Amino acid sequence: MKNRKLLMIPGPVEFTPEVLSALGLPTTSHVAPNFIEVFGQALERLRNVVLSPSGQPFILAGSGTLAMDTAAANLIEPGDRALVVNTGYFSDRFASILRRYGATVTQLPPPAIGDAPPPEAVERELRAGTFKLMTITHVDTSTAVRADVKSLAALGRTYGSLVVVDGVCSVAGEELRQDEWGVDLSLTASQKAVGVPPGLALVVAGPRAMETFRNRKHPVGSYYSDWNEWLPIMEAYEARKPAYFGTPAVNLVWALNVSLGQILTEGMEARFLRHRRLSGAFKSGMAALRLQEVPVRPALCAHTLTGLYYPEGTGVALLGLIGDAGVIVAGGLHPDIKARYFRVGHMGAVTEADILSTVGAIERALIKSGAHVQAGTGVSAASAALQ
Amino acid sequence: MKNRKLLMIPGPVEFTPEVLSALGLPTTSHVAPNFIEVFGQALERLRNVVLSPSGQPFILAGSGTLAMDTAAANLIEPGDRALVVNTGYFSDRFASILRRYGATVTQLPPPAIGDAPPPEAVERELRAGTFKLMTITHVDTSTAVRADVKSLAALGRTYGSLVVVDGVCSVAGEELRQDEWGVDLSLTASQKAVGVPPGLALVVAGPRAMETFRNRKHPVGSYYSDWNEWLPIMEAYEARKPAYFGTPAVNLVWALNVSLGQILTEGMEARFLRHRRLSGAFKSGMAALRLQEVPVRPALCAHTLTGLYYPEGTGVALLGLIGDAGVIVAGGLHPDIKARYFRVGHMGAVTEADILSTVGAIERALIKSGAHVQAGTGVSAASAALQ
Repeated sequence: MKNRKLLMIPGPVEFTPEVLSALGLPTTSHVAPNFIEVFGQALERLRNVVLSPSGQPFILAGSGTLAMDTAAANLIEPGDRALVVNTGYFSDRFASILRRYGATVTQLPPPAIGDAPPPEAVERELRAGTFKLMTITHVDTSTAVRADVKSLAALGRTYGSLVVVDGVCSVAGEELRQDEWGVDLSLTASQKAVGVPPGLALVVAGPRAMETFRNRKHPVGSYYSDWNEWLPIMEAYEARKPAYFGTPAVNLVWALNVSLGQILTEGMEARFLRHRRLSGAFKSGMAALRLQEVPVRPALCAHTLTGLYYPEGTGVALLGLIGDAGVIVAGGLHPDIKARYFRVGHMGAVTEADILSTVGAIERALIKSGAHVQAGTGVSAASAALQ
Repeated sequence: MKNRKLLMIPGPVEFTPEVLSALGLPTTSHVAPNFIEVFGQALERLRNVVLSPSGQPFILAGSGTLAMDTAAANLIEPGDRALVVNTGYFSDRFASILRRYGATVTQLPPPAIGDAPPPEAVERELRAGTFKLMTITHVDTSTAVRADVKSLAALGRTYGSLVVVDGVCSVAGEELRQDEWGVDLSLTASQKAVGVPPGLALVVAGPRAMETFRNRKHPVGSYYSDWNEWLPIMEAYEARKPAYFGTPAVNLVWALNVSLGQILTEGMEARFLRHRRLSGAFKSGMAALRLQEVPVRPALCAHTLTGLYYPEGTGVALLGLIGDAGVIVAGGLHPDIKARYFRVGHMGAVTEADILSTVGAIERALIKSGAHVQAGTGVSAASAALQ
């Protein structure tokens, strides 16, 4: 499908051979005893990955957008107020989804693209309005900006707002301690740091979120997203009992359980650290190549991906040259700067070797495109950072 | 995952080795040129599988229920009237989904479980009310009843109702000629006769359905199901251009394209015939074993699966014995008769060998459970029918 090119986009990413092998196994029944066991394990493991012993996990066939959809559809009722802490394209998307289910949305925009709304501004909004929920995009895949979930969640708690974290580009890569930080719901998709090909929407809803859902006065606006249908299914599989609503994506769930097992074997602390370390090495290489990151301050930089402006005199053609050098990276996504930057994912099963390969491919592409770059500059810096 | 047991449930079914190999390939980017080509081809092929040159295909990450959800969410506006021609559990489900999006639903129940509403009754309803759309469950997976889509669609046309066909257990197995028969939308899921592990919702919407959608006055009730978001994506991939809304299930789409290619290489006419023939042989075997089918008349029997009452003195324990004999079959699903019957799927890549294996496993299980059955009775009859 991609020959031996390295896939370094912000999802789908490189997956382990064990995950891919599991995916290609002959499919069994969605109510076969061994599949029930696997689904049950995957639910338990998902809860542990987001460090939420109190959470209710959901594993659904769909994309990350479905995970966002379920959060909004089940928690919002017509007329509810919601605050979106906006750090990019995916914050805008959450605002659209919340509105679709009847929310009156206040968007708190960042001072500039690549920045995040300051905590004081968030607190001002929370104090001024009564918000049923606030959303935080942990890592906005369009800007590579990482929000300070811990501090923002504490603010949400203080002002009585449910805290919903879009962790599509963060869960299982960035530090996220759902229960300890007071996050009420986190969500992600399989193809990011969770390390499974795309097709699964993953949600862990905490007790306050589930209580809000149970106290609804209106039916859930979407049928496919309705937790009334899915909750008994998730509870049944976790209790190792057969159940049916929609047929689960058997092979993807089997692969998910393999990946979640690998993640927990590594351990969440080690995993957070590895993502920080590899991200640091990659960014050192990029800095040595004098590429400018999209986030405006180092404290805002994600560890799961890097957003980089094309140097002057180059542009989107650079992507093709990087591809020729053996590494697939992604173009821009934020509409305002789409043609001015590119994105490199480094999450999940990413290795030191991947980091060096990628820095090297970008370095060679820059040289080919005529940039004044000394061969070896980037890889030396990245390699040094890995010592 | 299932060792060498044969999976003969009404989905997921046995898949070809080529499909499973494609599924386990290392994932590429959702906007890689070769993936765009594959997605584009899959869209074109899906249109050909349902014989709808005029149709707009949608391939989405989700279960078959999502396909039903998109049909209802995009075609129904609050207050619209809908007629459900009810042949079982999945007709009931369509009624629930239609109601969720604001439809006033008239359910036309069958005279009995295993029967279908007579065409005269359908015509009476259509004449009496003005229905924006009617739904037909081509094959209800809970009863193995096959509706006469051709005649019912003609009635729908006559009375100006959109004709929506739930083809989850029929598309790519049962004869379905979407354009010729005047069907406005057909939908299915990957894990049935389409022959791909679960996780894709497939829809082909005809021109009248798309026009109805375009003329909507109200926003679509579900965000994830909204064709306003998905249509430009499907159009882009078919035009071999990159596009993004939600990340497509790359590996599943790759496997889908392989399977659709195999289906069209066999040819739709040959495929309809093969399903009829193998279904006939299986049913001959079952009749020889004196098992009674759930559908009340042969004309109502699906060719993609068979619903069978347990013979007296046996029950759900028979499933375990059939499993011990090497074949996985499914229990009952229709709530009113759940414990009294079982279901056998024979669709997609099903072979003559699978049919004999399954008849043989059921025969041996019956003997083990104490039924008065002569060894060889079922397999002889099935084998004779295959001559």
